[in-house]
Amino acid sequence: MGRWKPDARNRLEQAALQLYSKRGFQETTVAEIAERAGLTERTFFRYFADKREVLFSGGSALEERLVNAVANAPASLSALDAAGLAVEAGAKLLEDRRPHARQRQAVIAANPELQERERIKLASLASALAGGLRRRGVGDPAASLSAETAIAVFRIAFERWIEDANQRTLSEIVGELRHELKVLAGGT
Amino acid sequence: MGRWKPDARNRLEQAALQLYSKRGFQETTVAEIAERAGLTERTFFRYFADKREVLFSGGSALEERLVNAVANAPASLSALDAAGLAVEAGAKLLEDRRPHARQRQAVIAANPELQERERIKLASLASALAGGLRRRGVGDPAASLSAETAIAVFRIAFERWIEDANQRTLSEIVGELRHELKVLAGGT
Repeated sequence: MGRWKPDARNRLEQAALQLYSKRGFQETTVAEIAERAGLTERTFFRYFADKREVLFSGGSALEERLVNAVANAPASLSALDAAGLAVEAGAKLLEDRRPHARQRQAVIAANPELQERERIKLASLASALAGGLRRRGVGDPAASLSAETAIAVFRIAFERWIEDANQRTLSEIVGELRHELKVLAGGT
Repeated sequence: MGRWKPDARNRLEQAALQLYSKRGFQETTVAEIAERAGLTERTFFRYFADKREVLFSGGSALEERLVNAVANAPASLSALDAAGLAVEAGAKLLEDRRPHARQRQAVIAANPELQERERIKLASLASALAGGLRRRGVGDPAASLSAETAIAVFRIAFERWIEDANQRTLSEIVGELRHELKVLAGGT
């Protein structure tokens, strides 16, 4: 009680994911997650608004990475390339978490409410990315079109990555899809 | 009672949209919608699963249109062009409903639950479109990439259309964005 617990956030995330995988998201309570992590419910709510948010806590770090990457992309890049480079940079955040990502995706796939949440998170990533492009002086519709397209690339790359038998990195797959899109658009 | 009411579905949709706009989605009951339409709650539930679905009932007609259009697109078209042509065809379904679409969008924008629903409906349109592309012999990731990109174009075009002061048609705006995407990808 009151003793400092190192890495509480991470332990809560791990405990939640294990319980959601084993028992199902709906069937798991915050009390059970906290207990498994050796922490209190109060500590849980210090980090997460509810049990759904545990699965989406990486979103803000990813958004920050995307927005920074787009701000720092070479000025010579087109809007679509700047957005594409940003999602490739964002992909690097996830590279060493493939087993975690796969387990998390299975929990989300089993629950329509979580799927809706995931889509909304992706939509807000696209908005943030479009905002970053506008700060580079990109107008509309180029900003939103580039951002939405880059996030679609990211989402499809992510799905392929968690199923990929060849152990390619997520950023490699993002790079391949960026290229594929240009081929499809007649650009290469 | 028991008397045949012409165009019940459409009357229920109109009544729901008017009440959602005036009072808010949360504050409106199915009983009120039915009463305004001069119908019974029982009739309401013959057409719609719940009061949320009233706003999304056009989705299946749109999906059908997209899937047919992609099946009938010239075989010589690339996957991205076939998907783009399909959303342009889908756009034609909505052309004469701009005031309705604008009012509906305002209701959705005011309610996070409806926004999530809208995103899921768009995601399932993208899945259906990708399925249509696969039936044309398009492989992956080209099928999902083209479908997701085309739906992103559709979504952005839709937003511009309901705000557009120049009274361009939705399919014109879709066409412009398809072109813009190719320019961004270096394809023209």
